[in-house]
Amino acid sequence: MKQYNIGMVGYKFMGKAHSHAYKEVPMAFPGTPVPVMKAICGRNKAGVEQAAAQFGWESAVTDWRELVQRDDIDIVDINAPSDAHKEIAVAAAKAGKHVFCEKPLALNLADAREMLQAAEEAGVKHMVSFNYRFAPAVQLAKKLVQEGRLGRIYHFRAWFLQDWIIDPDFPLVWRLDKNVAGSGAHGDLGAHLIDLAHFLIGDIEEVVGMSETFIKERPLPSSMTGLSAKGDASAPKGEVTVDDATLFLARFANGALGSFEATRFAPGHRCTNAFEINGSKGSVKFDFERMNELQVYFTDDAEDVQGFRRVMATDAAHAYMDAWWPAGHSIGYGQTFTHVIVELLNAIEEGRQPVPNFADGVKCQAVLEAVEKSVDERRWVKISEM
Amino acid sequence: MKQYNIGMVGYKFMGKAHSHAYKEVPMAFPGTPVPVMKAICGRNKAGVEQAAAQFGWESAVTDWRELVQRDDIDIVDINAPSDAHKEIAVAAAKAGKHVFCEKPLALNLADAREMLQAAEEAGVKHMVSFNYRFAPAVQLAKKLVQEGRLGRIYHFRAWFLQDWIIDPDFPLVWRLDKNVAGSGAHGDLGAHLIDLAHFLIGDIEEVVGMSETFIKERPLPSSMTGLSAKGDASAPKGEVTVDDATLFLARFANGALGSFEATRFAPGHRCTNAFEINGSKGSVKFDFERMNELQVYFTDDAEDVQGFRRVMATDAAHAYMDAWWPAGHSIGYGQTFTHVIVELLNAIEEGRQPVPNFADGVKCQAVLEAVEKSVDERRWVKISEM
Amino acid sequence: MKQYNIGMVGYKFMGKAHSHAYKEVPMAFPGTPVPVMKAICGRNKAGVEQAAAQFGWESAVTDWRELVQRDDIDIVDINAPSDAHKEIAVAAAKAGKHVFCEKPLALNLADAREMLQAAEEAGVKHMVSFNYRFAPAVQLAKKLVQEGRLGRIYHFRAWFLQDWIIDPDFPLVWRLDKNVAGSGAHGDLGAHLIDLAHFLIGDIEEVVGMSETFIKERPLPSSMTGLSAKGDASAPKGEVTVDDATLFLARFANGALGSFEATRFAPGHRCTNAFEINGSKGSVKFDFERMNELQVYFTDDAEDVQGFRRVMATDAAHAYMDAWWPAGHSIGYGQTFTHVIVELLNAIEEGRQPVPNFADGVKCQAVLEAVEKSVDERRWVKISEM
Amino acid sequence: MKQYNIGMVGYKFMGKAHSHAYKEVPMAFPGTPVPVMKAICGRNKAGVEQAAAQFGWESAVTDWRELVQRDDIDIVDINAPSDAHKEIAVAAAKAGKHVFCEKPLALNLADAREMLQAAEEAGVKHMVSFNYRFAPAVQLAKKLVQEGRLGRIYHFRAWFLQDWIIDPDFPLVWRLDKNVAGSGAHGDLGAHLIDLAHFLIGDIEEVVGMSETFIKERPLPSSMTGLSAKGDASAPKGEVTVDDATLFLARFANGALGSFEATRFAPGHRCTNAFEINGSKGSVKFDFERMNELQVYFTDDAEDVQGFRRVMATDAAHAYMDAWWPAGHSIGYGQTFTHVIVELLNAIEEGRQPVPNFADGVKCQAVLEAVEKSVDERRWVKISEM
Repeated sequence: MKQYNIGMVGYKFMGKAHSHAYKEVPMAFPGTPVPVMKAICGRNKAGVEQAAAQFGWESAVTDWRELVQRDDIDIVDINAPSDAHKEIAVAAAKAGKHVFCEKPLALNLADAREMLQAAEEAGVKHMVSFNYRFAPAVQLAKKLVQEGRLGRIYHFRAWFLQDWIIDPDFPLVWRLDKNVAGSGAHGDLGAHLIDLAHFLIGDIEEVVGMSETFIKERPLPSSMTGLSAKGDASAPKGEVTVDDATLFLARFANGALGSFEATRFAPGHRCTNAFEINGSKGSVKFDFERMNELQVYFTDDAEDVQGFRRVMATDAAHAYMDAWWPAGHSIGYGQTFTHVIVELLNAIEEGRQPVPNFADGVKCQAVLEAVEKSVDERRWVKISEM
Repeated sequence: MKQYNIGMVGYKFMGKAHSHAYKEVPMAFPGTPVPVMKAICGRNKAGVEQAAAQFGWESAVTDWRELVQRDDIDIVDINAPSDAHKEIAVAAAKAGKHVFCEKPLALNLADAREMLQAAEEAGVKHMVSFNYRFAPAVQLAKKLVQEGRLGRIYHFRAWFLQDWIIDPDFPLVWRLDKNVAGSGAHGDLGAHLIDLAHFLIGDIEEVVGMSETFIKERPLPSSMTGLSAKGDASAPKGEVTVDDATLFLARFANGALGSFEATRFAPGHRCTNAFEINGSKGSVKFDFERMNELQVYFTDDAEDVQGFRRVMATDAAHAYMDAWWPAGHSIGYGQTFTHVIVELLNAIEEGRQPVPNFADGVKCQAVLEAVEKSVDERRWVKISEM
Repeated sequence: MKQYNIGMVGYKFMGKAHSHAYKEVPMAFPGTPVPVMKAICGRNKAGVEQAAAQFGWESAVTDWRELVQRDDIDIVDINAPSDAHKEIAVAAAKAGKHVFCEKPLALNLADAREMLQAAEEAGVKHMVSFNYRFAPAVQLAKKLVQEGRLGRIYHFRAWFLQDWIIDPDFPLVWRLDKNVAGSGAHGDLGAHLIDLAHFLIGDIEEVVGMSETFIKERPLPSSMTGLSAKGDASAPKGEVTVDDATLFLARFANGALGSFEATRFAPGHRCTNAFEINGSKGSVKFDFERMNELQVYFTDDAEDVQGFRRVMATDAAHAYMDAWWPAGHSIGYGQTFTHVIVELLNAIEEGRQPVPNFADGVKCQAVLEAVEKSVDERRWVKISEM
Repeated sequence: MKQYNIGMVGYKFMGKAHSHAYKEVPMAFPGTPVPVMKAICGRNKAGVEQAAAQFGWESAVTDWRELVQRDDIDIVDINAPSDAHKEIAVAAAKAGKHVFCEKPLALNLADAREMLQAAEEAGVKHMVSFNYRFAPAVQLAKKLVQEGRLGRIYHFRAWFLQDWIIDPDFPLVWRLDKNVAGSGAHGDLGAHLIDLAHFLIGDIEEVVGMSETFIKERPLPSSMTGLSAKGDASAPKGEVTVDDATLFLARFANGALGSFEATRFAPGHRCTNAFEINGSKGSVKFDFERMNELQVYFTDDAEDVQGFRRVMATDAAHAYMDAWWPAGHSIGYGQTFTHVIVELLNAIEEGRQPVPNFADGVKCQAVLEAVEKSVDERRWVKISEM
């Protein structure tokens, strides 16, 4: 079996998710090229060494510049903080490595385009990790749209609701700092919704948006790990420089109407990444908190038994599921990354670009920025302006 | 339009439900004979007069013996406490009146049979008010079974869960007194499940059961109204003489397996009257707390979109619903009684027995008692023994 | 008991709903003044006479001008098509009658204001029938907001989804004609959402919207009744002059963000009038298809058992429910109107304005038109501009 | 970090599940001893070698007798077909190895007891893989019971519903052969319910049951893999010698009432392993098809907001979840085995017996056989008779 050597930059939440996925690929997808966990890279030597041991990497390094030049690395996996994506990706591409990057692709559209251009000029494969596409239930939604089983699409409404910063004393972590994170709920959560819209419905033509930072100052953090952090209400405060919530309306090129909402201020929603599609022949509904299910409705069902079907997308008939367990046995969040990496490896092996790739990342970034522009200028903004 | 004059005995919870239904019939079902609310009867003069005024009856009387003899009464409606059913029903039938009786038909099987016999000998129409049959979603379940759309039936599982006496200090109301109520959860709730089983699946052949009174003594009540009552934990206590919960397994004549549970000790369940049917071609699920919905599954749905459909049984395609509101607009508990009375009036007008009638009440009673016998004798009991 | 004589103009869907409610009031709410169903009015003599007989009105008349002048009429109930509301309401108020009007109050804001002014000048009571406020589950949401149990409000998102015109051959009924209906999904469905927003959250400051008519021509109808109509695909076609779907974003005066969507193109949704509120201490969710339930979340629940509670708003602790059945026994759409009329009658009896009244109708209309202006001019519009 | 060398017998569905779990332990639970995947064993040389490569075992062997004697093996993992469990487990124990065995522990109670005795005499650690205990939502249910937060327990009702053999032409696979599988739905699915009952409620005292084989003959199989198999309706038929469905009622030692149902004839249920517990202070509901959720109800919630809470058991406050992803990010079926193995390794390291162990397996087997005896003899059977 063909193997590809991975060099990964970043070792926190996403580093763990990717590592987990690399280990699952050979077991669950024996026909896919094998990813070899060659080297993991981070600035903190002790931290990255501990991660290497825990996650099963052959080695731990601290200099990504060196890593991307190594002959024994085929693919560079970038899940460092967003503000480092561009420099690493461009260097990796120039070094002739395939590049696999976490979302958001970059802090802004210009950077994203530069990354795409670098990868194209280098002729390498590139992929952006929009993992929610890879839930089998989302794949089923795509299939139904693509096969025309929902007919002409009228509506796409999507919302990504979380509640982890609802406490005003939750500290000012890096995700609340525009310089590091680029944006708040919009770039973190809204980016996923936009990518799903592109995947499921198609291009967006224009948008009008609204944004808010409900809690404008927060205590400076004493410590932080991943999404959890402890704050001290009496600590000095700093300014929150990203949005707590961003909403926008959109028109798609195919005439469908879109509604998008991303917020971190929705108590009771830990990770409600949800959407609904309405078409002339039917509808589908998805909620990531029940990621193994898709609600499906068809207008041509017999008159007395019409209703949304709760489809467990865990049968062999559903994408990726024959790799896992018998019907009805759920998979989890971790497996979405495994599917991402299966696509990455198979695409490289087959000599084609993976999907979604940097072009999709750029497209997503363009919509994100068009929404920001719309918020700033209080008007409809066409994506073609960007 | 043909009219029938009603004389009703009883004016509490069920008296109100029936009165409400009589008033709805002409408005919602203009093709049905009109019930005329002639006289309401109760032992307490002030109470029944107040009820007559509130519910819209032409007159209030206190002697049911007199009422059932009146020439201007066509139908006697009995919703007095269970221990009075037999005497009134037999007298009404002998007086040539059609008889409409609340469930349980009687305190025991012998009484129920006597009632049926009296009605048959008198040649009158008779009906027992198993109102849950008349929820449109339940009618849909029946239709699917009857049309063979669920195939051969394998399983019927049903449970009626309530929680109104979970507090050990809830007082010893009449429903907890065997002499008045006949039995507890079994006769009150289980009776509905058994009737639904007869309606949806068919005859039961044998049963084995288990019963329990969890709280064996309760404070004597200071006052009571309907299902609500206030107790005083320090009041003197009396013995609870009925079951708090009864469960049984059953075999149906058609080979299906049944599981039944009735309890008043299920916190969180105000009125979960629920069942599921599994057949070779599909399944249905019903829960009265969402009485406008039926969950429906078909094995021959396309492989990738199989799932329980949440059918809102509120379309014109569903029984009774063209009489009410547009699709998607719910009806409530009250309307089930309206449908019962539509059946009663139409059957009388058409010269046929309403369904369910006293024969169904007797059948239900036979199963109730077979279960009690099974509990007492710790063995399987055939219904044919009863 | 005090009585009020009703003269009602209109006898179709809403005429039936109101009639049903008038009959329920005395039975379920014995402490409320009694509405006397004096006269029903419609242009078609045979039709209105049939309705009077079916719904239980004392008389049927065809001239509303005469009706509003009658000495024996206390309250004029207007549920004729929207384009007739203003003229009747103004005449009724001038005649000194209390006025109860279906929504939308008028075809446009100017008319709505004229109606309010007429009622105020006449010193009569006035009410607009936003019935969804009166579902006990919605009343519970209001109570939680009002008592501060959800804390500071961050988000209100609402959508009213239907699917009754999804078939392109569904005919061009009056609801699709701007001259009669004023607007489409926006005025019919969106109006309810806006009123709920005013009720639950407070004033809206500014909006930006988007609107679409997906099917621009439809067959002319051969017949129509209520919401159902049969069309002939080969019939000559006419232009649809109202919106099929309208979405808008909003900012509330209290800083909350709002998202609204009304559409008739959402297959599988018969009547999904749904909203969610997120506040600093909790959230609530409502869906009219499960109108007896409210989903409620509190941030201060113990750490290991946090989750949305499915509250059946059918306990005695919930608004209006002690008037109906024991806990867990659902009410339906019809009962929301009964609650509306209880408010109408009690307010008149107590000498105060009912809520919601024409001022609320005007406020709703102002937002509806601000959204239309926003759609036309492609910009944010402040309600204060209207 | 301490390491334990694993020798595993079996390499099909459960072999894959266990292998997957061994690989996840070091990454997700860095504080737990590391399992070393030393050797995998199966009768088919090619098959087991392919499995070793795919699953990541150091070596593949075909003789389990040799394997259990090897000095470099610390733990023997048995997931071969049920009829082989006893012989392997006894030999492994005698060789001084810790033994980890899939459920059902043995084909019958006598064998199970022999296995327990052998393990006890050898002084080794032993565990049986009742993996459903280890879903965090089930752990939460246990915690609530244990901390008294549900009060005195009244009811436990459980059902394990599947539909994979609903087609009468599905072939006669080994799971339908009593000699290999021991029993059908009862031993396969019911065993899990019984173990959950023991875990959550306590000892069962007596049972009465009912059993059925709906489809008595099936085509002989041409091929089979895991739970999926293809049949040929025209192939010669053989007799089904196990139950398709088994139901039973139970009394627990603590006075609670139990209801159990296991069936493979419930269309629409791929893997509905569900239970509900009702206690004096609250209730919980679980359904494995939504394995990340527990429905929780407390009687002492404020009167107007009582309702089942949908708790996502994915917070750091929930068992095992701090090892995985941020709140709201689901885990799947595979992770339950990872938790099983964490318990196995930690218990060995701490010198205590893992839970559940062979004593739990014996207890489960005793109830399974008591039910079978009850079915045969048509009477209540006490577990103490077994």
